[in-house]
Amino acid sequence: MSKMLRLFKIGGKVLDNAQELHTFLKAYAKLEEPKVLVHGGGKKASRILKTLGIEPIMFNGRRITDEPTLEVVTQVYTGLTTWIVSKLRGYGQQAIAVSGADAGVIQAEKRPSHPVDYGFAGDINQINPEFIGLLISQGIMPVFNPITSDENGQLLNTNADTMATELAIALSYSYQVRLHLCFELPGVLEDVNNPASVINELSYKGYEQLVKEKKIAEGMIPKLSNSFNAIKNGVYSVQICSSRMLIEPKNTGTLLIWD
Amino acid sequence: MSKMLRLFKIGGKVLDNAQELHTFLKAYAKLEEPKVLVHGGGKKASRILKTLGIEPIMFNGRRITDEPTLEVVTQVYTGLTTWIVSKLRGYGQQAIAVSGADAGVIQAEKRPSHPVDYGFAGDINQINPEFIGLLISQGIMPVFNPITSDENGQLLNTNADTMATELAIALSYSYQVRLHLCFELPGVLEDVNNPASVINELSYKGYEQLVKEKKIAEGMIPKLSNSFNAIKNGVYSVQICSSRMLIEPKNTGTLLIWD
Repeated sequence: MSKMLRLFKIGGKVLDNAQELHTFLKAYAKLEEPKVLVHGGGKKASRILKTLGIEPIMFNGRRITDEPTLEVVTQVYTGLTTWIVSKLRGYGQQAIAVSGADAGVIQAEKRPSHPVDYGFAGDINQINPEFIGLLISQGIMPVFNPITSDENGQLLNTNADTMATELAIALSYSYQVRLHLCFELPGVLEDVNNPASVINELSYKGYEQLVKEKKIAEGMIPKLSNSFNAIKNGVYSVQICSSRMLIEPKNTGTLLIWD
Repeated sequence: MSKMLRLFKIGGKVLDNAQELHTFLKAYAKLEEPKVLVHGGGKKASRILKTLGIEPIMFNGRRITDEPTLEVVTQVYTGLTTWIVSKLRGYGQQAIAVSGADAGVIQAEKRPSHPVDYGFAGDINQINPEFIGLLISQGIMPVFNPITSDENGQLLNTNADTMATELAIALSYSYQVRLHLCFELPGVLEDVNNPASVINELSYKGYEQLVKEKKIAEGMIPKLSNSFNAIKNGVYSVQICSSRMLIEPKNTGTLLIWD
């Protein structure tokens, strides 16, 4: 059996709350197994865009990224990655900031401009997991931001959930990958208005049933669909949870299983 | 004899001119020997600080870096490094963005707040060149921005010339290091108003003589003093030149020699 690797994706709420982020990073630094962190930061990027006089434009939950927007989101994301890496260093964990452009680790391409022109939005074509494995073998844990590039050197803005899922699939050739998608709720909820209604375990069939019954909030559907796709493609497990799961062992969120 | 490594530092003028920067990076990508790039970007950082309503404060040519300033310069520098790495990828050179916080490669400490409090300004204590050597052995050339961190995880803003010089010294244990400090003039000038008066070769004794005669522009003294210090500490050669030296072989700038 291959070695376990844990891959965490953290987003909006934890990144916007300094105390929560410190708590998460401190606990993350203590995990002894190989690990990879992927972060988003769209809310922060939108705030800074507004301060700079650039109006953020979203469509279907995805950012429309023109050239000035691309420059700002690149700055905000890469700055955040470096900040996270320095904090992890302070907590005793050697880490390295990585974008998809670094060491050719991710090959992306600009999303076709039809039916919707998302500008410099990147879809992932291929991941080279060898370099990630080399870093981990040196005890240096990679922290990814969702910036990628194509082979012509064009930077692209990529969805962080998608990046985490694609990295998890690519790393499954060498590791038993446990993917933890952390977000602002304690897990997938049966009743979106009741945080106590966490579904502890969800099978693909159960998910299809809930979608049919319109019991899954629409925003959750891409996350769950991506996650089941990851499991189908070799990822050992996917957990949808709060970033507090590392310090509150009872909050295990929702574990997705194939059947 | 150890293998040759070329270390380039690029700053203000070339970073602010898209055409010049593309020209430099295209030529840099073609160099076949091991190479390291260090970039500054203070002018760009100052422009963005102003747009965000933060007044840049300089003292003796160094930035006074309070917390909001640190966040912005970190974003601007790391964004620029990632942009450079993606362009190099487009020109066929695999590269990786590195700050001093990454992989614990540089250990810095906050500059003492007396006699001048520069805020979160970092002085370099130690460099671990092993990781840089590992990257180069994989054909992945490091591109450094001047952000460092201390061991407690505090990010610090470091002078890019100093970082380049310290990296050159640390890498001299494994390589024959040729340091190229690129700046806005074609070299060290005998007459600061005459760009044609480039001094082709300057010894330490000759430099001391010029300082005594007040023939060296004051802004050049820290650069030259750092450079001679590098040579004294094992760096094979230091060239002070324009970034165009890669495409204009006649413009070799000023070569510093010990005696």
